[in-house]
Amino acid sequence: MSKLWGGRFNKKSDWLADQFTFSISYDHRLAKYDVIGSIAHARMLSKQGIIPKGDSAKIVAGLKKILLQIETDKFKFDPKAEDIHTDIQNRLKFFIGKPADKLHTARSRNDQVVLDMKLYCRDEIAKLVAAITYLQKEILEFANKNKDVIIPAYTHLQAAQVVLLSHHMLAYIEMLERDKTRLFDCANRTDFMPLGSCALSGTSLKTDRVYLASLLGFSQVAANSMDVVSDRDFIVELIGDCAMITTHLSRVAEDLILWATKEFDLVDIDSSFCTGSSIMPHKKNPDVLELVRGSSAKVTGLLAQIHVLLKGLPLTYNRDLQLDKPALFDSVDTAKNVLLVLSKIFASMEVKKGNAAQRVLDESFFTVDVMDYLVKKGVSNRDAHDILGKMVRECLDQGRPLSSLSLGELKQYSLLFGADVKKLFNPQMSVKIKSSLGSTNPNLVAQQLNQWSKKLNA
Amino acid sequence: MSKLWGGRFNKKSDWLADQFTFSISYDHRLAKYDVIGSIAHARMLSKQGIIPKGDSAKIVAGLKKILLQIETDKFKFDPKAEDIHTDIQNRLKFFIGKPADKLHTARSRNDQVVLDMKLYCRDEIAKLVAAITYLQKEILEFANKNKDVIIPAYTHLQAAQVVLLSHHMLAYIEMLERDKTRLFDCANRTDFMPLGSCALSGTSLKTDRVYLASLLGFSQVAANSMDVVSDRDFIVELIGDCAMITTHLSRVAEDLILWATKEFDLVDIDSSFCTGSSIMPHKKNPDVLELVRGSSAKVTGLLAQIHVLLKGLPLTYNRDLQLDKPALFDSVDTAKNVLLVLSKIFASMEVKKGNAAQRVLDESFFTVDVMDYLVKKGVSNRDAHDILGKMVRECLDQGRPLSSLSLGELKQYSLLFGADVKKLFNPQMSVKIKSSLGSTNPNLVAQQLNQWSKKLNA
Amino acid sequence: MSKLWGGRFNKKSDWLADQFTFSISYDHRLAKYDVIGSIAHARMLSKQGIIPKGDSAKIVAGLKKILLQIETDKFKFDPKAEDIHTDIQNRLKFFIGKPADKLHTARSRNDQVVLDMKLYCRDEIAKLVAAITYLQKEILEFANKNKDVIIPAYTHLQAAQVVLLSHHMLAYIEMLERDKTRLFDCANRTDFMPLGSCALSGTSLKTDRVYLASLLGFSQVAANSMDVVSDRDFIVELIGDCAMITTHLSRVAEDLILWATKEFDLVDIDSSFCTGSSIMPHKKNPDVLELVRGSSAKVTGLLAQIHVLLKGLPLTYNRDLQLDKPALFDSVDTAKNVLLVLSKIFASMEVKKGNAAQRVLDESFFTVDVMDYLVKKGVSNRDAHDILGKMVRECLDQGRPLSSLSLGELKQYSLLFGADVKKLFNPQMSVKIKSSLGSTNPNLVAQQLNQWSKKLNA
Amino acid sequence: MSKLWGGRFNKKSDWLADQFTFSISYDHRLAKYDVIGSIAHARMLSKQGIIPKGDSAKIVAGLKKILLQIETDKFKFDPKAEDIHTDIQNRLKFFIGKPADKLHTARSRNDQVVLDMKLYCRDEIAKLVAAITYLQKEILEFANKNKDVIIPAYTHLQAAQVVLLSHHMLAYIEMLERDKTRLFDCANRTDFMPLGSCALSGTSLKTDRVYLASLLGFSQVAANSMDVVSDRDFIVELIGDCAMITTHLSRVAEDLILWATKEFDLVDIDSSFCTGSSIMPHKKNPDVLELVRGSSAKVTGLLAQIHVLLKGLPLTYNRDLQLDKPALFDSVDTAKNVLLVLSKIFASMEVKKGNAAQRVLDESFFTVDVMDYLVKKGVSNRDAHDILGKMVRECLDQGRPLSSLSLGELKQYSLLFGADVKKLFNPQMSVKIKSSLGSTNPNLVAQQLNQWSKKLNA
Repeated sequence: MSKLWGGRFNKKSDWLADQFTFSISYDHRLAKYDVIGSIAHARMLSKQGIIPKGDSAKIVAGLKKILLQIETDKFKFDPKAEDIHTDIQNRLKFFIGKPADKLHTARSRNDQVVLDMKLYCRDEIAKLVAAITYLQKEILEFANKNKDVIIPAYTHLQAAQVVLLSHHMLAYIEMLERDKTRLFDCANRTDFMPLGSCALSGTSLKTDRVYLASLLGFSQVAANSMDVVSDRDFIVELIGDCAMITTHLSRVAEDLILWATKEFDLVDIDSSFCTGSSIMPHKKNPDVLELVRGSSAKVTGLLAQIHVLLKGLPLTYNRDLQLDKPALFDSVDTAKNVLLVLSKIFASMEVKKGNAAQRVLDESFFTVDVMDYLVKKGVSNRDAHDILGKMVRECLDQGRPLSSLSLGELKQYSLLFGADVKKLFNPQMSVKIKSSLGSTNPNLVAQQLNQWSKKLNA
Repeated sequence: MSKLWGGRFNKKSDWLADQFTFSISYDHRLAKYDVIGSIAHARMLSKQGIIPKGDSAKIVAGLKKILLQIETDKFKFDPKAEDIHTDIQNRLKFFIGKPADKLHTARSRNDQVVLDMKLYCRDEIAKLVAAITYLQKEILEFANKNKDVIIPAYTHLQAAQVVLLSHHMLAYIEMLERDKTRLFDCANRTDFMPLGSCALSGTSLKTDRVYLASLLGFSQVAANSMDVVSDRDFIVELIGDCAMITTHLSRVAEDLILWATKEFDLVDIDSSFCTGSSIMPHKKNPDVLELVRGSSAKVTGLLAQIHVLLKGLPLTYNRDLQLDKPALFDSVDTAKNVLLVLSKIFASMEVKKGNAAQRVLDESFFTVDVMDYLVKKGVSNRDAHDILGKMVRECLDQGRPLSSLSLGELKQYSLLFGADVKKLFNPQMSVKIKSSLGSTNPNLVAQQLNQWSKKLNA
Repeated sequence: MSKLWGGRFNKKSDWLADQFTFSISYDHRLAKYDVIGSIAHARMLSKQGIIPKGDSAKIVAGLKKILLQIETDKFKFDPKAEDIHTDIQNRLKFFIGKPADKLHTARSRNDQVVLDMKLYCRDEIAKLVAAITYLQKEILEFANKNKDVIIPAYTHLQAAQVVLLSHHMLAYIEMLERDKTRLFDCANRTDFMPLGSCALSGTSLKTDRVYLASLLGFSQVAANSMDVVSDRDFIVELIGDCAMITTHLSRVAEDLILWATKEFDLVDIDSSFCTGSSIMPHKKNPDVLELVRGSSAKVTGLLAQIHVLLKGLPLTYNRDLQLDKPALFDSVDTAKNVLLVLSKIFASMEVKKGNAAQRVLDESFFTVDVMDYLVKKGVSNRDAHDILGKMVRECLDQGRPLSSLSLGELKQYSLLFGADVKKLFNPQMSVKIKSSLGSTNPNLVAQQLNQWSKKLNA
Repeated sequence: MSKLWGGRFNKKSDWLADQFTFSISYDHRLAKYDVIGSIAHARMLSKQGIIPKGDSAKIVAGLKKILLQIETDKFKFDPKAEDIHTDIQNRLKFFIGKPADKLHTARSRNDQVVLDMKLYCRDEIAKLVAAITYLQKEILEFANKNKDVIIPAYTHLQAAQVVLLSHHMLAYIEMLERDKTRLFDCANRTDFMPLGSCALSGTSLKTDRVYLASLLGFSQVAANSMDVVSDRDFIVELIGDCAMITTHLSRVAEDLILWATKEFDLVDIDSSFCTGSSIMPHKKNPDVLELVRGSSAKVTGLLAQIHVLLKGLPLTYNRDLQLDKPALFDSVDTAKNVLLVLSKIFASMEVKKGNAAQRVLDESFFTVDVMDYLVKKGVSNRDAHDILGKMVRECLDQGRPLSSLSLGELKQYSLLFGADVKKLFNPQMSVKIKSSLGSTNPNLVAQQLNQWSKKLNA
């Protein structure tokens, strides 16, 4: 098939060079966007009288035919086409003949590919947002289903205090919400229409880029033609957003992998998301969660890659930029897949309530509450800390629980201890007495669950 | 010096462990923010009756004394203190005695350090924004000073078309403007007050986090205590923003390094930003620009680092997170330095106007204009491309310039060529006839320069 | 198709989980190695009497049939198979029935996949070494073809001194030679036979791993079963070696991209490795070289990825490790492709000798030679440097070449200058007088070219 | 202080540029190597008659004085010196006057800095090797101390089989041994003497680089002057080796962090390597191990950084390369520190033998042994797997241990079961019956321990 730039060359390109430079194997994913952009472009060209209305009508009709083929999976990509733009151009020529030669007026592949990529990003950002919302809902559902379950919470992977499982789940929802707002910001920064910048300097043809922007649903026109064809910020930013999502989810996966061990034993991951061992019949391995965790490695690597790619490139377009596409596609696909599969895991996961109830009886979880008991009676935080430290150490040494201390013994640590302190050695009490905004207090958590329910189902 | 958590342990920590874990060598940069946070915290505690007003007053007075020392560089950091929080706590105790023991009530180092980091980020984002604006202004000034200079512009590092140097400069300003908006978004996402989340679950003491937020200038209170002490999104995002800035500037530096070669010879970097060779007396090396370019490597590495750091960490706080600080500090410092030094380079750089004027006479720059000439006469873009391709190849083969073609010869390529096509072989004409929005047309560029001048000096 | 571990589970796996965990889309590349490993395994099992000789014979015959299918591209991979091991196991069962069930004795997929990967690495390292040698030969050929051409050499992208182009080419050959030795070292470290470690603890069946190693061409048996199934060092190292190769080649590509600009104009990249512009008919863009440069970004990203993947994984096998495969395959493919395409570029590239000859007349290239002239007469290096610095500056200010200085004028800078100094302002002389080992002296360079010719063709 | 290249410039460098380019703040660590290199250089220069013997003697004496100052920490680095080479040159001039001006003959900072870096790497590789050996010894000691302890071993973080703790420890020793051999390979590849390549082309002065190599303990002379001043392979490789070490140790740290949880509860990290909580008196956090884990993020980031730095740099020296130093220093320091601190942790860590003994009673650990029991009796692995899968599922459903199955019940699963199968439900038996090379069999493990003891103490 002919190339778009053959005229000047008197020699065919090397087949190895072709193989090395051809991008159709991945940029075929832009096909739909390329056609949509071209339809708008043809309309603008005829509105401005740059090409005849009749030619434009044929071009648009031909492109719509191609679009239908693409959307119904009937478009056969030509592996011998250099890239998707060439493939579509060739097809259009095949369908409508000569008028097709007028489409590539007042534009260049440099601005065309940026347009395609921005349209892709716009769509995919919407899908990512939907996937995040879907996961948030499943987490919320899981939280609501296990509203009253109390579990140990960890710092340094050492069980520290008790919290409502639903409170822990709300932390995930918050993380994901930030990811969503980052995507919105990225969408806003992508919302500048690039087409018509041509190779780099604009054109002497009387185009109407504002009209193009309105046809294509952009709210602004990119202001500098050299910037537009060099700029890959929107791709870096979207990969960065995907990296944050997958890094977040690697942490969620780690929590669940730990909880699913025999040792922590707090949840049961549904068998449909586990696999077995080829040699150990008793194993039930959380493979899917491990792959979720590992996926963050991929996107972190891709984020590094896109920066390396751009580093030190002179303005304006350089062919290196072609490699931004597989990096972006892979990042977005990975993030979407991970969000989706994790949603399913939350939807089918069971809490081992009995085990949780057993675990939260450990009295060391309540020492902070006892400290605050003393603080409320006027003891300084430092002194309260020292008192509790001494109590804990001595009880550990004697192998007895804190609650076994008699009132008399307690008073040897502090005369301010009353009998009521004993009520604190209780997980339900521990969450109930928390009162600060954002704390694990059941009423506050319930409010949060309600608010999220409204927000996510709005 | 004593540690904040000594009570429970009956053994001193290993000196090697101390060395390995102590963070004072870098987190002393948070000193100011730590004190500001503690002053607000003390006020809140006394307003809520959690500690006596008298104690609070002493604490605030002591902290103000420390703040003054810090701001006047008189605070001697104690290398034996575990971290900056401990150092300041110890100093406060030294100054005011017993009441100091009440400060660390209803908070933990987990939420305290997040607060310090957020206050640091808020300040540094403002400084980065100012540094970007400063660089934009210097670039604008440089563009205005050389408003009418026309230079070759490149794709694939092959000179492609001619543009106004000022148009090229506006591309840089656009890139930097996007960097600025990213910083604003990051600031918004950082604007959630973390203090009072305590270790992870909140507190049973009757705190007022909304009041704390208002004292500290946050517009919102972070909604989930477990999320807050685990969340390092704002750090990842700020490092990411710095990486985008330095990647951008690596491209600007590459342009200037190329322009400063004897071969391109378009600009003269001021000697005060170059260095010489220890062995070749004639060399004038653009070292500073090379380091600007290299700096992007550092921040890209740090961006990878922060993702690796977070990958797979279970909730909530883990000590690994300590290492977020040097990564962030180094990223922000590097971005600020690079912005500043590049501003100075633009302020002192000279354009070699004679060379530029010579270079833009190359007629191959005007082929697109000739193509568009034919398109305007109704030739399809494809045919026009082929016609020009043939003309270029044949002229190259015969070693003659395009402009040497007689009207008769031109008409052999296309009968539509008229004598007026000869006017197109001229750089001033080439920029002047461009008319599309965002193009290098002198009037449009002048408008842009004016708008930026207003915006940046607003 | 059935899974290898179905027995314990009473529920089918989720189709999304299947999609997410299935690796057959990429690990089919291990098919050949999987079969080779299994053939050796079956032989060992029967030699040790663990399975009957008859069963072993049937297994080996079945596997050989599969191997033939794979090697003749007739093996249809089953997209519904979980992974390549399962696919082959199922096929074997289909071919030979019941005896197939005995193959997976005394091994696990954990050690099996490590074996497959090591066999793959061994083959690919050999291919990479061959590809490096091929590129070295093409560079050597190019150097020999242009043996006497002198070009400017650069530090800081400022032309510094003149060198033989062939000397410059030898630098590339040295870089590549180091890459080769790194691959040899990696091969040595990979040369430990993993099979028979089973899931993690070894087996109670009486295997003979030494025999297995000899069948499979390994010189040593891996010494610790837990290490083996966790270890991905050989993958990290091979990706690292590929990253070094592509980073090296990004530098070579940058040199050539620069030399191919109109401004440097030292080489002509063959059109078959360039592409044109869709809008600028005169452009000849070094796209392939730009993609070579950009490829280093990919492999650098993959190197970061594999470290992130491994970071913090507890022993022994975790499913995250599955993701090592696409990262390795992509790294190796990229390195091989880049080596190959660059070989072709060197094979077809022409030097613009006239331009080179013109460029090296610039007298500033010879100042170091003049300095050394003075040093040989007893002037200290420092004084010689200062004398030349003054000469250069004053000549620049007066716009005259150094060679235009009369002997009288020269003697005003140093009385030690004689008439013979004028001979130094000559590129041929400049390379000829260099005498240090490794320098650009034509005789020394010729020796190097000869030595490499012998070594590479050995 | 004066710069080495002042002569040509008529303008002082900008203070900001100075700040930005000065490297003395980190390259002062090369001081010792710079002096050692210069001493050898001065000797070679006088041996060759390039500088007078008297001057050389004074230079050497002056440098030795400086070396003594450096080694006794009495050398005050001049923050106003551009770099360490300048600082030392200035000091030498101060000490010995005029003859100092002859030192910088027949070399350039380009080759000088590579020499310094190679000498640094040689020393640091030796230190890293020693630190690895030290850690291996401590792990071995720990293994020997707990030789007979049996623990659960994990795949997918699901307890899978039982192994000797000492077997698990040997896996760490193997990992570290590979790290050591990588360092040896890196040392070999670094062992090419660079000095005398000068800026890039060699010199016309009659130097003796072979003599230089012998004085400096290099076994070979670098063969190409352009390669030498551009080459940073040895730095990339050493950072890569450090990254592998820290990635390895992140895995070791993760194991120990898990084992130190209340849930796994297999080891007691000595308090001297833990810290407490400022608010939860009962916590004992494995902070040092968390920082070990986090350190891998730093070095992975630095590895990415060095590749980004080099990407696309044209030959030969570019100032970007200055930034290789902090990246290398930080990588090496981090790896050494992590190795050392982990050694101390192993030296003081206690195994909770009672807990371990309790944990390994879980009968599901022995199912593979039971499978192999059937395999030994002729059952195919597949059938054995299915039999065990059924047994496990049904016992789980009925909530009874496998060992509670009567012989009659066992025979319902397979008639081949005899009474002797009951002996297999025992952790001591499980490790004892393993017999394959590299397995957890106590005799084989003991052999390994002995061999390592001999090797590490050789």
